[in-house]
Amino acid sequence: MSGRFIVFEGGDGVGKSTQVRLLAQALADRGDVLVTAEPGGTELGERLRKLLLDPATGDISARTEALLYAADKAQHVAQVIRPALERGQWVICDRYVDSMLAYQGAGRTLDAAELKKLADWATGGLVPDLTVLLDLDPSVGVGAKRELDRLEAAGEEFHQRVRDGFLALAAAAPERYLVLPARASVEQIATAVLRRVT
Amino acid sequence: MSGRFIVFEGGDGVGKSTQVRLLAQALADRGDVLVTAEPGGTELGERLRKLLLDPATGDISARTEALLYAADKAQHVAQVIRPALERGQWVICDRYVDSMLAYQGAGRTLDAAELKKLADWATGGLVPDLTVLLDLDPSVGVGAKRELDRLEAAGEEFHQRVRDGFLALAAAAPERYLVLPARASVEQIATAVLRRVT
Repeated sequence: MSGRFIVFEGGDGVGKSTQVRLLAQALADRGDVLVTAEPGGTELGERLRKLLLDPATGDISARTEALLYAADKAQHVAQVIRPALERGQWVICDRYVDSMLAYQGAGRTLDAAELKKLADWATGGLVPDLTVLLDLDPSVGVGAKRELDRLEAAGEEFHQRVRDGFLALAAAAPERYLVLPARASVEQIATAVLRRVT
Repeated sequence: MSGRFIVFEGGDGVGKSTQVRLLAQALADRGDVLVTAEPGGTELGERLRKLLLDPATGDISARTEALLYAADKAQHVAQVIRPALERGQWVICDRYVDSMLAYQGAGRTLDAAELKKLADWATGGLVPDLTVLLDLDPSVGVGAKRELDRLEAAGEEFHQRVRDGFLALAAAAPERYLVLPARASVEQIATAVLRRVT
């Protein structure tokens, strides 16, 4: 069985990292699995992630923010994801391009087509084989956390646009998207993901 | 006299910062002058500059590097340059978009048209009123320094492509370029620049 590129998307606190771990465990006996995440899947990306999420960084223009996320993705694809896929590994990634389109496009209201071109240039056009969207009403997702980072603090209206952005991306590419309600049980979600993957 | 946007370009060690300072002094009695530089004209940009030039950062893919420079420019234009021009200030900037096109395009051999689009998106299409290129054979310019940063260490062939890149940019837009031999005296260069500006 040759490697595939599987991405989990959705707002903060919807359970992406749990599902990433469960899918990695389930696939471990079918092939070599690499688990990674954005932003921050490389050393450079980790430094950019800190810069982006640190409230002390202060105001970042919307285009600057998008370019920093794009830089994180470019490095991650070049250094981690593409080499792994070329070795035949399964790559399971917590967030990818669609997070950038949802947060910086729908959320920050940058032009979607321009942002898509930027993301495509950054990643060399690498598209996941499957994207699992864990969908949740943002007033439920964000409320669960105590300390908010810079992005989380952007307010519920922002997060509502992000959610709508994700759902629109999923609706535009149903063949590579699996949308699941994040409030389903961990086991229900894991079972549905594994069924679709295998 | 309303403000103008003037940029100095060229390789390392050609005397850009000296000429920036001299022009700022010469213009001080004609208007309000803001002196700035890329990368690093903002706090975020300064952190990106350190990341980019620090040899400890390790391998950065060519697209990642270009995206980080673009992020620096986006923030610099949004936070510093455009507000200053709107206030009617003269803005004198040490390096701008053409450095990115010369270093990342000609130097790293990324596609020039794609890079130009990226830079235009980052800056919102802000073009200098005048760009002064201090032109120097790179074997002379680089040899003058003892410790090389990550970009300087890229070798003479790289810096030859960068020089050719700058000269090609100047040739393509002669109406907004002043090309001067960097080996001329400091006074000769300053006089030629001031004559063109006023």
